[in-house]
Amino acid sequence: MRKPRLMTPGPAMVPEDVLLELARPVIHHRSAEAKQVITEVTQSLKTVFQTKNDVLILTASGTGAMEAAAVNAVPQGGKAIVLSAGYFGARWASVCKALGIQAISLETEWGRPVEPEQVANALKQHPDAVCVMGTLSETSTGTGHPVEAIGKIVAGTKALFAVDGISGVGAMECRTDLWNIDILCVGSQKALMLPPGLAFVAVSPKAWAQIDTFDSHSFYFNLKTARKKAKEFDTPFTPAHTLILALRAALKRIEEEGIENVWNRHKTMSDACQAGVQALGLELFSSRPAEGLTAFIVPEGVSESKLRGSLTSRFGIATVGGQDKLKGKIVRIGHMGYTDELDVIGTLAALEMTLAEMGFEVEPGRAVTAAQQVLMGAKHSLAAV
Amino acid sequence: MRKPRLMTPGPAMVPEDVLLELARPVIHHRSAEAKQVITEVTQSLKTVFQTKNDVLILTASGTGAMEAAAVNAVPQGGKAIVLSAGYFGARWASVCKALGIQAISLETEWGRPVEPEQVANALKQHPDAVCVMGTLSETSTGTGHPVEAIGKIVAGTKALFAVDGISGVGAMECRTDLWNIDILCVGSQKALMLPPGLAFVAVSPKAWAQIDTFDSHSFYFNLKTARKKAKEFDTPFTPAHTLILALRAALKRIEEEGIENVWNRHKTMSDACQAGVQALGLELFSSRPAEGLTAFIVPEGVSESKLRGSLTSRFGIATVGGQDKLKGKIVRIGHMGYTDELDVIGTLAALEMTLAEMGFEVEPGRAVTAAQQVLMGAKHSLAAV
Repeated sequence: MRKPRLMTPGPAMVPEDVLLELARPVIHHRSAEAKQVITEVTQSLKTVFQTKNDVLILTASGTGAMEAAAVNAVPQGGKAIVLSAGYFGARWASVCKALGIQAISLETEWGRPVEPEQVANALKQHPDAVCVMGTLSETSTGTGHPVEAIGKIVAGTKALFAVDGISGVGAMECRTDLWNIDILCVGSQKALMLPPGLAFVAVSPKAWAQIDTFDSHSFYFNLKTARKKAKEFDTPFTPAHTLILALRAALKRIEEEGIENVWNRHKTMSDACQAGVQALGLELFSSRPAEGLTAFIVPEGVSESKLRGSLTSRFGIATVGGQDKLKGKIVRIGHMGYTDELDVIGTLAALEMTLAEMGFEVEPGRAVTAAQQVLMGAKHSLAAV
Repeated sequence: MRKPRLMTPGPAMVPEDVLLELARPVIHHRSAEAKQVITEVTQSLKTVFQTKNDVLILTASGTGAMEAAAVNAVPQGGKAIVLSAGYFGARWASVCKALGIQAISLETEWGRPVEPEQVANALKQHPDAVCVMGTLSETSTGTGHPVEAIGKIVAGTKALFAVDGISGVGAMECRTDLWNIDILCVGSQKALMLPPGLAFVAVSPKAWAQIDTFDSHSFYFNLKTARKKAKEFDTPFTPAHTLILALRAALKRIEEEGIENVWNRHKTMSDACQAGVQALGLELFSSRPAEGLTAFIVPEGVSESKLRGSLTSRFGIATVGGQDKLKGKIVRIGHMGYTDELDVIGTLAALEMTLAEMGFEVEPGRAVTAAQQVLMGAKHSLAAV
């Protein structure tokens, strides 16, 4: 027997009741029932995103939401400042390049957070920049960026602040309105506990004012059309509406738990996983870890592919390795969405046993104990509140 | 009790076993299992599309596939000939406009098929046209276009032939390679018996030669990237892979039935539905009906919305009305995908009863009998084969 545990930083595990929603007979996307569902999920998404802005539903991968943000906010030949501190930060630059947008890339060493002053300086140097494009959780390095501080800086300028919150939103604090995020991009398959296939954008009035100044070079990702349809609780094209039905069930869970409690749960799981990994003498890759995943450096003498392969074949645990220049160098454990404390404990236990069997010096139980101490501390502090 | 019957021309009903696939736990999209599924569905899609060309999977509505075709095949400022004979033909022109492509629209009266000579003349007049964009089944009018004949004409020129087969493929004969279709666009929620959320493009070597000459102005819909990933049985971004898993089950059904038998079944259902509708004295809207749906003109004195509303409230049957200038003027009954002869019979029976109750002079049983005669004839001729 091999029980699967999807401990990857997206797609993440989906609750059983949400999966069953997907198996319901298809309804027509223009029916009153479908409009009712869109009304409800849009309202719930606003709570999860902490925004009063328009929230639009796209049938696409998360990258589709990034393309929608860029193609609607910045005209061809326009300038954008891209905060590039990993594989997904760099994706903003690739999107810009394809769309004919001039991207000023602020490169930050992978694993380190973007410095807000760097953004302030860039905005001074490039007062004609239409948009700053950043990342909430850089999944490739397991780094959380100081989005709140950056948002404060961008808010003082004419530029818009677009944030890739694809793997971050739901897994860590993100207050769209309070943090001055003009275009928030989110994917369905991460902390929102859904399979992949839907993406969301939240668009501020400041962003709409810019978007309304020119015709976007995309028909499919035209946010003006999506806004018009959203007013009728509809979407421009036939959406992936079995996923929208399931989204309603997933969001109901988040609402019942409360978004701040959801953030806290992820923070606790993240702290526990980090403590466990470090108790084994392993080094975290990021100097400012994100809360939906833990990235650690593969220790010398250990093969990343053998380690991850063994976790899968013996324990059914799926993790991911590094991307691009981090290939073979790090292991990333996801703990987002439908994941609880014991999933983290189990994964750490499996990691201990696997490393020990691979000849890496490990004292079995250390990681688990360290994680338990965090979890017990968190419970105490929660009880104290 | 109200048993739902989704008789709309997409989304269409999905088989129960396919729905259950959607409820399976999510797997990682880069796992060996996911790659195996992509390998299998790509192979099966080639059979369904009757092509040896590359078939690429996009996470998008069908319109996303149309945007992918246009943005990759025609550079900005380039020229395309658009065969516009309905709401979806006109969509090609809207896509072109957004993308900065010069669209020469050949307008055909809605409900009539495009004349191949019209296309030949346009190509002579516009030898610089990079692409001819047409439609297999124009869902808005229920018209099937002579794609084979048009393909023969376009094949003799340098231009590419892009076909919106979103609602047509699977529901009616479409031989991509034999008919010289360079870019075929297909959606998941029609005859492929899946919920919406996936789109497919089949790309010919002639199309690749053109696509490879310039950089597409889209990152998300870049077909060169998709081709590269498809060679590794992968997709560029996180795809809607619960839908891909379910697609495998749906395609298995099509393969077991045999694609030509699937076309025949749709032809028979279409003939039966048309005969039934006409037996009631109703007029078909199209002079060359497509095979996945039947569009009839709402008779004088009958309210389209009351008729369709009553079909839904009393019999659970969902149909659609007209779009754009056909609003209120036609009713469209879908019979594609997971739909059989008795679904058509039931719908006709409900139509008879509803019309009678609305005061329209109807002889109950006439439509059903006419449809039965077609079905029995079809069975005889099948038996004779």
